[in-house]
Amino acid sequence: MAIEITRSFIDDIKSAIHDGNDTYLSSLVSEQHPADIADIFYKLGFNEADYLLKILDNEKAAEVLIELDEELRDKLIGLRTSKEIAEIVIEHIDSDDAADVIAELPEQKKEEVLTLLQDVGQASDIVDLLTYDEDSAGGLMAKELIKVNLEWDLAYALREMRKQAENLDEVYTIYVVDEKNRLKGTLSLKKMLFSSSLKAKVKDIFNEENLHFAYAQDTSEAIAQIMRKYDLVVLPVLDENMTLLGRITIDDVVDVIQEEATEDYALASGLSEAVESDDKVWEVTRARIPWLLIGLAGGILVSQVIGIYEHQLAINPVLAFFIPLIAAMGGNVGVQSSAIVVQGLASQDNPIGGLMGRLWKELKVAFINAAICSVLVLAYSLVANPNPELGYTVAVSLFAVIIIASLFGTLIPLSLNFLKIDPALATGPFITTANDILGLIIYFMIAKAIYGI
Amino acid sequence: MAIEITRSFIDDIKSAIHDGNDTYLSSLVSEQHPADIADIFYKLGFNEADYLLKILDNEKAAEVLIELDEELRDKLIGLRTSKEIAEIVIEHIDSDDAADVIAELPEQKKEEVLTLLQDVGQASDIVDLLTYDEDSAGGLMAKELIKVNLEWDLAYALREMRKQAENLDEVYTIYVVDEKNRLKGTLSLKKMLFSSSLKAKVKDIFNEENLHFAYAQDTSEAIAQIMRKYDLVVLPVLDENMTLLGRITIDDVVDVIQEEATEDYALASGLSEAVESDDKVWEVTRARIPWLLIGLAGGILVSQVIGIYEHQLAINPVLAFFIPLIAAMGGNVGVQSSAIVVQGLASQDNPIGGLMGRLWKELKVAFINAAICSVLVLAYSLVANPNPELGYTVAVSLFAVIIIASLFGTLIPLSLNFLKIDPALATGPFITTANDILGLIIYFMIAKAIYGI
Repeated sequence: MAIEITRSFIDDIKSAIHDGNDTYLSSLVSEQHPADIADIFYKLGFNEADYLLKILDNEKAAEVLIELDEELRDKLIGLRTSKEIAEIVIEHIDSDDAADVIAELPEQKKEEVLTLLQDVGQASDIVDLLTYDEDSAGGLMAKELIKVNLEWDLAYALREMRKQAENLDEVYTIYVVDEKNRLKGTLSLKKMLFSSSLKAKVKDIFNEENLHFAYAQDTSEAIAQIMRKYDLVVLPVLDENMTLLGRITIDDVVDVIQEEATEDYALASGLSEAVESDDKVWEVTRARIPWLLIGLAGGILVSQVIGIYEHQLAINPVLAFFIPLIAAMGGNVGVQSSAIVVQGLASQDNPIGGLMGRLWKELKVAFINAAICSVLVLAYSLVANPNPELGYTVAVSLFAVIIIASLFGTLIPLSLNFLKIDPALATGPFITTANDILGLIIYFMIAKAIYGI
Repeated sequence: MAIEITRSFIDDIKSAIHDGNDTYLSSLVSEQHPADIADIFYKLGFNEADYLLKILDNEKAAEVLIELDEELRDKLIGLRTSKEIAEIVIEHIDSDDAADVIAELPEQKKEEVLTLLQDVGQASDIVDLLTYDEDSAGGLMAKELIKVNLEWDLAYALREMRKQAENLDEVYTIYVVDEKNRLKGTLSLKKMLFSSSLKAKVKDIFNEENLHFAYAQDTSEAIAQIMRKYDLVVLPVLDENMTLLGRITIDDVVDVIQEEATEDYALASGLSEAVESDDKVWEVTRARIPWLLIGLAGGILVSQVIGIYEHQLAINPVLAFFIPLIAAMGGNVGVQSSAIVVQGLASQDNPIGGLMGRLWKELKVAFINAAICSVLVLAYSLVANPNPELGYTVAVSLFAVIIIASLFGTLIPLSLNFLKIDPALATGPFITTANDILGLIIYFMIAKAIYGI
């Protein structure tokens, strides 16, 4: 059960802060999970949050900070001296979180904090993690893990593991390495827990089958895919010599999966970046205006295209009636086609999957859709309008527009992907606008042919 | 590293199948992970897949089957007798997967398989799981878990755990219950592994803080949210008396998160159901045609709306030039607004979050966007067109359309959510079409006012 944060609870906290009643305040939050305390922080003013942070004990404070979103965290950390950051925050968190926090500090403070860390091993782990791209396996991994040597016996391995486990909250997997720290396999906790003899050697009971791992430079998307496919809770990270560098846990990967999905969704909806409902007015505007300007430019271009046919429109103003239908259908079909491609590329059901095969299938789908829609619109036009030319024009154009928009919607994201540009950029307003223009040119050309003007 | 399945490897497998060379075939796949063998299945014909399945040993065959998508799995299982299903498949998989497989069988076969299971405990676990909705915690959970009693000492607990662990691949959490099987807390594997005394009682060393759990009827979305928030790998499921029923592992929840995201994305792109790139032509068409028909109906409605203004168009055909711009901008703005609401509702940053506050903020964003776009389009019109009325008409209408589309885009998904209808339905073609119609009515009304016709 997630804890419900009620308004009266927040009011309680606020008044305890204002009265400086630290004992009471501490009793309100000390038993709470850091993620819940982070939620409380979002409901407080900045100064209140800062006050509450100060009365938490160091370990809890550090855990709460890493649960917060980057913006609030950086602001709160910005108020602390390098010494405080090192002692209050960094020493209490895992190396991956520590690297994330330090990466956001100004250059000088970064150096200072690293120098001030008591634990030299921790400092060098963090320095090492800072060298990786944040969207790579290296950027996601933590250095804390439990590893045993192939040649050890279980009794010795247990003693070593006990030492290593001091820095860890929970143990999920025990890695087995050789004398050069190269990953050889894993040791099952279950076997370890229930093994009857402590004299057995690690190499006699460890597991080397189906060993999954990532290289430090692998992308976070690739990591997410492997962990999802093989139902992994933790994944070891190696360098090119198979040396064990660290491990990635599923909770970090769940966040990656969620963020990816959110970004693709935002792009498909015409938002240039993911927006949260509590973002500021300016942030929301900034995410929205780029696509609106593209739409505006497209609309102006379309107006010029239609301008070419002013003469026809003056003679047959009824032609204008179906402009929105043609434009909208082109847009809708294009977005559908591109979304299918984008999803297919994201899940890599079919990594390359034969371009011609995909186009051919798309063409078959487009043909069915085009036939259904054209027949319906023709039937409507013939019933509603005395003038059959209009019906023919609309039906034939709609047919052509659906076919062409489908092919366009398929080809554009595939081409972007080929050019190593995020294909999700092709969804949303971009494809809609492109198809608006194309669709209306087809419409007026067909009108010209049918009306003979 | 995921294993690459090359074309030559598949060709090797195919020819081994055709030659009936079972020994070689078995050597090709026996060391592979079930998820990789599942990928191989997708590249084979149905009869080939069926052949390959038969040469796998029972446990591997069962594991491969649960990795397959439902369609292929049900087809392959459909060829087996009830006895084969019970002995080859169900007895080798966890209760949650077993329940999923059995749920898809025809009624009579379901009964037969359950009766044929050797392990009566397993059969009753499955029958129990079948009573839950598949999108609830009960539907996601498995019955296999390790639990110890508060009153046991560690030596006894270890012996009991060893028995329970026989059915489990890996142990992540040990649950602590009282004599009535009510969940009291957890026992850390780390503590268990490194505890020096086996005489300590479970109740003296177990952990009761921050105990997270779900009730069997909780929705899968709620489960995903809790596990993500608290970084959990496994979550216990209880009934209303706090009795421990089962546990949910993160891998199942990752799939839920991914599916949710995929569905929302599909809806935003005008697909009525999530489509995979290898779905059949008819499946893809079925997903696409509903929204196209809505778009078509909308387009026809719009044509009638414009029809009202035929007289104006005949006098001023230039008015038609900006029809697509007005329609497209209304649609784009509406989709953006609704996407922000849908995402906000999905992540529940701000569960209810003050309707008026949200509308007010949306209005501010809309005002800025409307002002920027209107000024730009006015500037363009005045430069490009000799006739200033057209510029004023377009600029004023665009301003009004952006404001109204924003409010509409915000209110519709919020209303759907209030009515307990999936708000994601409001994104995509639905909101686009609604805003097309609204936008053009505004446009022609303003034209009428400005041109005075």
